[in-house]
Amino acid sequence: MDHNENMKKACDLAELSVKNGAGPFGCVIIDKNTGKICAETHNLVTIHNNPTLHAEIVAINNASHYFCNFDLSNCILYSSCEPCPMCLAAIYWARIDTVYYGNTKEDAANIGFDDSFIYDEMKKPVSERAVQMKQISCDYPHIAFDKWVEKSDKIKY
Amino acid sequence: MDHNENMKKACDLAELSVKNGAGPFGCVIIDKNTGKICAETHNLVTIHNNPTLHAEIVAINNASHYFCNFDLSNCILYSSCEPCPMCLAAIYWARIDTVYYGNTKEDAANIGFDDSFIYDEMKKPVSERAVQMKQISCDYPHIAFDKWVEKSDKIKY
Repeated sequence: MDHNENMKKACDLAELSVKNGAGPFGCVIIDKNTGKICAETHNLVTIHNNPTLHAEIVAINNASHYFCNFDLSNCILYSSCEPCPMCLAAIYWARIDTVYYGNTKEDAANIGFDDSFIYDEMKKPVSERAVQMKQISCDYPHIAFDKWVEKSDKIKY
Repeated sequence: MDHNENMKKACDLAELSVKNGAGPFGCVIIDKNTGKICAETHNLVTIHNNPTLHAEIVAINNASHYFCNFDLSNCILYSSCEPCPMCLAAIYWARIDTVYYGNTKEDAANIGFDDSFIYDEMKKPVSERAVQMKQISCDYPHIAFDKWVEKSDKIKY
């Protein structure tokens, strides 16, 4: 696995992203077993008008589609920048266990992105966050959880 | 705004989700200005084989599409469960400032979901996380950032 070559690809995609009118972030996902690229993407937030379409999310979407599997534990992810909390959590949900990155979240903060701020928010208790989060206490939310526990043929993820 | 009614809708969607073979989570996004629903979704991870398709992400995708805008600061989000770090960070990126939720991340952990574990991972320094994260030091990553800074007609998000 040529880590530098894969990182260069992610960074070339980040450059292309700026040219295309999106944020300066690129991502490549490699199949560990074959060394082949299974996703190569860049940020699409302002192109698709969708705040979730960071390069890593788009890459995970594409790699999941490629393998027809929500479990990407056979993959390595290369990102031109340290993943933000949204993308890092997506990496955990995808069971990807190795990530290589270029710029840091502090570098991203220095050019106006909220990565570092959101990492700080994550560490706070619910009541102290900038986003107001209020629990509604009622019986409804438990019903689906109970049905999930009872379901014998559920697909765990 | 009838918070209990909106929460009931999110919870009904969570129940439907289990019936449909997906995770027990539902979400509703409401336009603050009109009180109208602009997205009502449930988890799709195992249905679409995509680990990013939590109810809140699908709802933000749909609401962005509805408004043709990556900025959803005009919206309130109702989730049947406290958002995981991926979804919470997506809420920040979408500029949604108010979230109502039902079950907690501890409730989710109790039925086998990793929400609480991933919150704990977020708080750790890069070197101590379960996911191996390695920075590749080279000049490439800075190029796209420099081009972003120089770009006069960029769309910030």
